[in-house]
Amino acid sequence: MSGSRTPESALDVGGDSFTSSREEDAADGIQHSHRMLSFSDALLSIIATVMILPVTHTEISPEQPFDKGVQKLLATRIAVYLMTFLIVTVAWAAHTRLFQVVAKIDDTLALLNLACMMTITFLPFTFSLMVTFPEVPLGIFLFCVCVITIGAVQALIVVYAFHFPHLLNPQIEHCAHRALYRQHILGIILRGPALCFAAAGFSLFFYPASYLLMAMVIFLPYFSKAASWCRGRLVGRCRWAGVWGLGAASRACGAAATTRHPCGVPSSGLWAPSPRGLDQFLPPGISTGPPELPAPSVEFFTFDLHEPLSKERVEAFSDGVYAIVATLLILDICEDNVPDAKDVREKFQGSLVAALSVYGPHFLAYFGSFATVGLLWFAHHSLFLHIRKATQSMGLLNTLSLAFVGGLPLAYQQTSAFAQQPRDELESVRVSCAIIFFASIFQFAIWTTALLHERETLQPSARFGGREHAFMFAKLALYPCASLLAFASTCFLSRFSTAIFHLMQIAVPFAFLLLRLLVRLALAVLRALRGLRLPEPGGEDDSRAPLLPAAC
Amino acid sequence: MSGSRTPESALDVGGDSFTSSREEDAADGIQHSHRMLSFSDALLSIIATVMILPVTHTEISPEQPFDKGVQKLLATRIAVYLMTFLIVTVAWAAHTRLFQVVAKIDDTLALLNLACMMTITFLPFTFSLMVTFPEVPLGIFLFCVCVITIGAVQALIVVYAFHFPHLLNPQIEHCAHRALYRQHILGIILRGPALCFAAAGFSLFFYPASYLLMAMVIFLPYFSKAASWCRGRLVGRCRWAGVWGLGAASRACGAAATTRHPCGVPSSGLWAPSPRGLDQFLPPGISTGPPELPAPSVEFFTFDLHEPLSKERVEAFSDGVYAIVATLLILDICEDNVPDAKDVREKFQGSLVAALSVYGPHFLAYFGSFATVGLLWFAHHSLFLHIRKATQSMGLLNTLSLAFVGGLPLAYQQTSAFAQQPRDELESVRVSCAIIFFASIFQFAIWTTALLHERETLQPSARFGGREHAFMFAKLALYPCASLLAFASTCFLSRFSTAIFHLMQIAVPFAFLLLRLLVRLALAVLRALRGLRLPEPGGEDDSRAPLLPAAC
Repeated sequence: MSGSRTPESALDVGGDSFTSSREEDAADGIQHSHRMLSFSDALLSIIATVMILPVTHTEISPEQPFDKGVQKLLATRIAVYLMTFLIVTVAWAAHTRLFQVVAKIDDTLALLNLACMMTITFLPFTFSLMVTFPEVPLGIFLFCVCVITIGAVQALIVVYAFHFPHLLNPQIEHCAHRALYRQHILGIILRGPALCFAAAGFSLFFYPASYLLMAMVIFLPYFSKAASWCRGRLVGRCRWAGVWGLGAASRACGAAATTRHPCGVPSSGLWAPSPRGLDQFLPPGISTGPPELPAPSVEFFTFDLHEPLSKERVEAFSDGVYAIVATLLILDICEDNVPDAKDVREKFQGSLVAALSVYGPHFLAYFGSFATVGLLWFAHHSLFLHIRKATQSMGLLNTLSLAFVGGLPLAYQQTSAFAQQPRDELESVRVSCAIIFFASIFQFAIWTTALLHERETLQPSARFGGREHAFMFAKLALYPCASLLAFASTCFLSRFSTAIFHLMQIAVPFAFLLLRLLVRLALAVLRALRGLRLPEPGGEDDSRAPLLPAAC
Repeated sequence: MSGSRTPESALDVGGDSFTSSREEDAADGIQHSHRMLSFSDALLSIIATVMILPVTHTEISPEQPFDKGVQKLLATRIAVYLMTFLIVTVAWAAHTRLFQVVAKIDDTLALLNLACMMTITFLPFTFSLMVTFPEVPLGIFLFCVCVITIGAVQALIVVYAFHFPHLLNPQIEHCAHRALYRQHILGIILRGPALCFAAAGFSLFFYPASYLLMAMVIFLPYFSKAASWCRGRLVGRCRWAGVWGLGAASRACGAAATTRHPCGVPSSGLWAPSPRGLDQFLPPGISTGPPELPAPSVEFFTFDLHEPLSKERVEAFSDGVYAIVATLLILDICEDNVPDAKDVREKFQGSLVAALSVYGPHFLAYFGSFATVGLLWFAHHSLFLHIRKATQSMGLLNTLSLAFVGGLPLAYQQTSAFAQQPRDELESVRVSCAIIFFASIFQFAIWTTALLHERETLQPSARFGGREHAFMFAKLALYPCASLLAFASTCFLSRFSTAIFHLMQIAVPFAFLLLRLLVRLALAVLRALRGLRLPEPGGEDDSRAPLLPAAC
């Protein structure tokens, strides 16, 4: 078992039955959706980050002052970027939920999914139109048409999957109230498109109403989530606790623990016990519910399909964003920074080295930026290694972190402009530090949130007192501290701001490399200090020992 | 088991021991490399396709004739693109092999891998320099520096992993001749950089020699592969057959079958029996081998680490290429095709619809191109669903197919230029058809190659006479046939070339959707025709029945 590189290959050893069932399925044209979902994640993450390009490519000539006009243009483009990121993330989350219901795919579903993706990739353009021409209703009309198309395709997917139930999640497949489920899921899926249909209608004669409706579409999931969370806090606290307990128990003993459930299906240990799992598919005021059920039992209908957002897909989506952000820079460099042959001959007397040295800051900034993105990915990777499942709030924090990571090319563009515009240097460094700070502090926030429910969300080693706890803390705190320090020092030593920034970019990778050593050193120092103050070796050893790795 | 969406989650059910061992590892800071490898695949696939951008962004103004100068520029850029694609693929293959030896990672290895990636992302730029300034040795010098850096980092990874053997592939970990292995692997890894070191030296005084050496670096793996294949064919035919048989037997019964092996490690059923597995790490003339071994036994040293190229990584790399190609287009559209507010006011009297209709062909071409890329991905996905493992030749064919897929944005750019340049319309349509044809015919070739060794490479259902065989044939033959047909018809009906091309783009998705129906129809017709000719129902049913799916 330990010899396998990936979990997949491990299956060949431990799960022969699984492999053979996969082969059987493939023979019927039915496929596990794993690869299609990775592909969709890749597409969606690229689309989400694409709109940073118009921001970075905003041309500010050296003699042009950084005045109101440029600031407004930049602000507009940043707004488009953030809105695109948000809406694509919402679409991604809906897609994730959809394919938690539909567990297997066949050719038709794969093709429908491609149609869905094609429509989603068109969303950024409608946003650009909307922001460039806010008073022309065409942008919002196109946006609404896209959302309606996406909704229609997703509804088609649901109807198709319910028509061939072997494609469904087996828990729904074997559910007696399957038709009821279909109704619910279709209701949720078509809620957004219905609002957009109204918005499209309004856009023809009173467009501000369309914008309001659009905002509702985007924030609806968050509102309904927040509302159900609050309700859960106020009303169903103890009841949830019971469900949690049952789920944990059923997982522990591997037996199917039966919770009260309108579907009559025992919620087996297969599914992680997250009571908010199908909230997405359950509108607050259920009206299509079976009339024979009493009103309070509606709460129990929130049966957990899976984790709220599957950890694998959160990782895949994040990887996509990090990968595209890291390479957006080289993409620019390869296109713009190869000097023209004629220029070299005329301006630099044929010396290619001289011609390239003009672009020197670009290359430096590229390496700095790649290192930053890479190390933020590294921190994210380490973090999710210790995370068992991603709750809704962790997903939201992750989105925020990724949105700032997507802004890093902007930081690059700012820092590569150092040479040309020494005047705005200070501001550029500060913007870069701020972007890095926010990207990393939201990562830190994910961890903090996870620690609040550490039993459910974290691996034992990363919890309070776990062996990796101190290391994780240090890893995630490194970038926020470094960027904050750099920002603060530019306030005192504004003349050396560039030097400070470059020093940070060089020092942080080495800090990561030596992190384990540094943390051990810090812990040893802490322990020594403690030992000096309270010299009770017995009690102290007990509390501190787990923090130190065994293999010192 | 059937309830799990992905193979990973299946592990929670079937492989508790695996999950817990993973948790233990995470506690020690040792991680399975799965996610890092996906991230690397994403980065490398983006880098491989990036260089198509300068090609598509070659500006050809409408009044400018498509003369020698433009042709030369385009040809140069296409050459850069193809060379970059090839070299990045070579680097990717080397990376794949490296992490077949190193099975687990820790923080240091993750950081070293990031350093390696950063250097690889710089390769396209050196290629651009080389092609733009072929007579200036700076480009090749930088290229050599990059390759040497990559080699040094990879050597560091190997040395580090051998220093902490628990990170290694367990088969090497428990090998008695581990030091010998390290020697070998280091030898293979440093072969390229050593050549590049010589090339860097030559570049300072006699650069043509550098180019020759560089070509050797790129094509070395293919040459050595071809040479070893030829030798295997000529000399070791029967011996290979024996190894294959043993491997298959050991897998079938799950017992460890001992093959003669200088490491003394029985080649267990864990590893797929591919005798060419470690060829990459075994230079034809082994000199570092232990002197006590007789010369012919060198052949046996080719012990199989894993499949030559792990199927998962081939899929991940291909997905990355398809995803970035599909979105490159929307990236251009979002940046360039949002009309300027001032332009709309002045030129189009404030009518945004009129302003956008200028870009109409761009949008049409975008959807057409996305559909083409998406459907080619779909064909690839279906193909690899039925493939058990990817041999070296299949990997090469896949690379060639992907290189043409990367050229699709070029086809898009050509077809979106229809409106402006009706003169070159015919040529554009033909180029597009040719690119689509080659991208799809190489996919078809993968399948043909797989069929040659169908027992080893294909799932039973896709083999000759299998239930999915006819469908796979139809799926993979659809695009080559359609593009060939479109190309041929432009020769006869050159006036309607655009219409023909658009017709093809619209018809093919529907053909995919109705493929199962069409294939069944075709088979029924075939059967009817056969039945008319030779009316022997018994024999005919036997041979044809497996071709029809059971669930008609």
